[in-house]
Amino acid sequence: MRFAPRERLAARTSALRRELGDRGLDALVVTALPHLFYLLNLRASAGVAVVARDPPALQLVIDFRYVEAVDRLLRDGVAPPELEVVRVESTYDEALCDLLRRRPAGRVAIEADHLSVRRWTWLQRALAADLTPAVELVERARVIKDRHETQVLREAGEMLAAVIVPACGRARRGCSEIEVAKDIERLIEEAGFERQAFDAIVASGPNGALPHAHPTERRLSEGDLVILDFGGVHQGYCVDVSRTVSVGAPTAEASRLHRAVREAQVAAMAASAPGVPASEVDAAARTVLERYGLGDRFGHGTGHGLGIDVHELPRVGKRRAGPDEPDDLTLAAGMVFTVEPGVYVPGFGGVRIEDDVLMTEAGIEVLTPACRRLIDTDGLVSAGA
Amino acid sequence: MRFAPRERLAARTSALRRELGDRGLDALVVTALPHLFYLLNLRASAGVAVVARDPPALQLVIDFRYVEAVDRLLRDGVAPPELEVVRVESTYDEALCDLLRRRPAGRVAIEADHLSVRRWTWLQRALAADLTPAVELVERARVIKDRHETQVLREAGEMLAAVIVPACGRARRGCSEIEVAKDIERLIEEAGFERQAFDAIVASGPNGALPHAHPTERRLSEGDLVILDFGGVHQGYCVDVSRTVSVGAPTAEASRLHRAVREAQVAAMAASAPGVPASEVDAAARTVLERYGLGDRFGHGTGHGLGIDVHELPRVGKRRAGPDEPDDLTLAAGMVFTVEPGVYVPGFGGVRIEDDVLMTEAGIEVLTPACRRLIDTDGLVSAGA
Repeated sequence: MRFAPRERLAARTSALRRELGDRGLDALVVTALPHLFYLLNLRASAGVAVVARDPPALQLVIDFRYVEAVDRLLRDGVAPPELEVVRVESTYDEALCDLLRRRPAGRVAIEADHLSVRRWTWLQRALAADLTPAVELVERARVIKDRHETQVLREAGEMLAAVIVPACGRARRGCSEIEVAKDIERLIEEAGFERQAFDAIVASGPNGALPHAHPTERRLSEGDLVILDFGGVHQGYCVDVSRTVSVGAPTAEASRLHRAVREAQVAAMAASAPGVPASEVDAAARTVLERYGLGDRFGHGTGHGLGIDVHELPRVGKRRAGPDEPDDLTLAAGMVFTVEPGVYVPGFGGVRIEDDVLMTEAGIEVLTPACRRLIDTDGLVSAGA
Repeated sequence: MRFAPRERLAARTSALRRELGDRGLDALVVTALPHLFYLLNLRASAGVAVVARDPPALQLVIDFRYVEAVDRLLRDGVAPPELEVVRVESTYDEALCDLLRRRPAGRVAIEADHLSVRRWTWLQRALAADLTPAVELVERARVIKDRHETQVLREAGEMLAAVIVPACGRARRGCSEIEVAKDIERLIEEAGFERQAFDAIVASGPNGALPHAHPTERRLSEGDLVILDFGGVHQGYCVDVSRTVSVGAPTAEASRLHRAVREAQVAAMAASAPGVPASEVDAAARTVLERYGLGDRFGHGTGHGLGIDVHELPRVGKRRAGPDEPDDLTLAAGMVFTVEPGVYVPGFGGVRIEDDVLMTEAGIEVLTPACRRLIDTDGLVSAGA
């Protein structure tokens, strides 16, 4: 495992402390496990951290299963310098209460997206104090990738790009969707990924109209469009691509759908630039599909952020109104997201094309570069696209 | 996919409605995805159901990605007869609000373990009404497996049992933990499981003292104890076993640790009977390890329930006091849980032995029967165990 260097961790917690200050908060209880990886290099299935602003402190509550793992991070010099480890004796929430009781008075926030109603209610009663719900504190920090992260994501993108052509080659006449999915997952393993980013999707023929279908026993047959959607995790970071292939020669309608989606993807990429609201990228893809009369066949957003989670900020979708709607983030250098328009025609099938891009000052860098070449050669796209 | 028959679903929702009545509740908002599978046969990565008591109703809020999947359940006769499908137009929580606003007045509960502080706060504000936090409503129903579930779990147990000997054979001198883990995951796939229940754990030598260590590049060498912990999902249900093997002849200390853990497992299984509190099963294992002077080397509980989740009720651990502690359930026929004592010696390594059992009126049925035979033949256990 190649961990983020200690200075990176220090920069990340410093940024978080500034954000706490801006929101009038004194400390944050971090309960999202991906945030423990981001702030502490810790990969665990349990753990709670408390990040305090002034005086700056960073405490990690952890149970016996991870004590050695944390010791190792400390020994290897890849844990935050100020880290203090508190071991759980009975339950996490009791240990957390003890720790919060010993803190100076102040406004303590919890991660409202990552704490259940049950735990919040229990903690507030046990502490006889309010814990302020805060949203997207660490998530907002994570949206701009640092040098360590862009390096890892570039590598991961190249590794995944190398899988695309062989993966498409696995979608053969007579194979079941499940067989193809397993073959693709094996390719991802062999490419050196530590694990799948999610269960591979293989949706053939009419199943392609179900954008997140589980692979079935359905066998691929002549003329099917087949959506392949797969991804891997490398050094803790996720990449994710989709391709659509035709079994045998594509029908005229299949070619038209694929051309429309490809044009929509090109338009979305062309619209991506620092300073542009993410919703404009979505609008660019949507405009192309509407021109093809396929506007109502595109039921999801154009993309999502990638990083420690396979779905994270920024959301690249329609702009929505209302105070409780997710924000329409403005694109900035360092953001990494997917561009994945699709069309889904009930009874017929679907097409989705997905690549991962890094926003730079100069424009987007496609992290999964195999894509264009493959699509140009598989006969699905007309010369113009 | 072999779905639970419609009558089973009807029985499950009826039982849930009775439980709602007992708690003075009129409806439950179901946000845990495994509960959608349990109550509706639906496997989706999003969705919310509302189960109402009187008049009995069952509404499912779902987005466009899963509309076809739900239609298919309805067509195939494996959806609940009274199911009403509501499609999300903007967001899940808005669709849910609309639906709850149209309900007659009454006490509506949410799943406090499966709803975030953010969503609860938003929903209550949008509805201008209280939503009662409820805990373990569906979880308690799930703890007693019905005939469909025990049949699936028996099959899954046999499939996993068949993997145990080959899996242990993969832990060879010179292989890295990661290589062994990948080999084991392949065996699980080849055995016909739809996916891994969790990432396989291979913890060798000193890494064995970290009970939930990720596999590393460390290569297995002579005299290592190696903990293997792996599982599969079959027809939506999880099974999970652990074995510990020695690379080459075990040292005297390795043999002693393994003997102690094996005896602890036998004692825990012997203590398992209908009417017995789950904590007594844990106490039986703990007593054996204490007799070996290893009481403080056993830092986790003896077991956990298995089913749609790889960790569910019952908890098989120490009895704890206090109103907020998890209940110490009384064992009853139909419960399925793991029996997995372990010892972890920092710097040296660890031993864990885990099998899955079904509680029946007549006593436990071991679902992963390969275990004993393997352990008897690999030289790690003395004749007496």
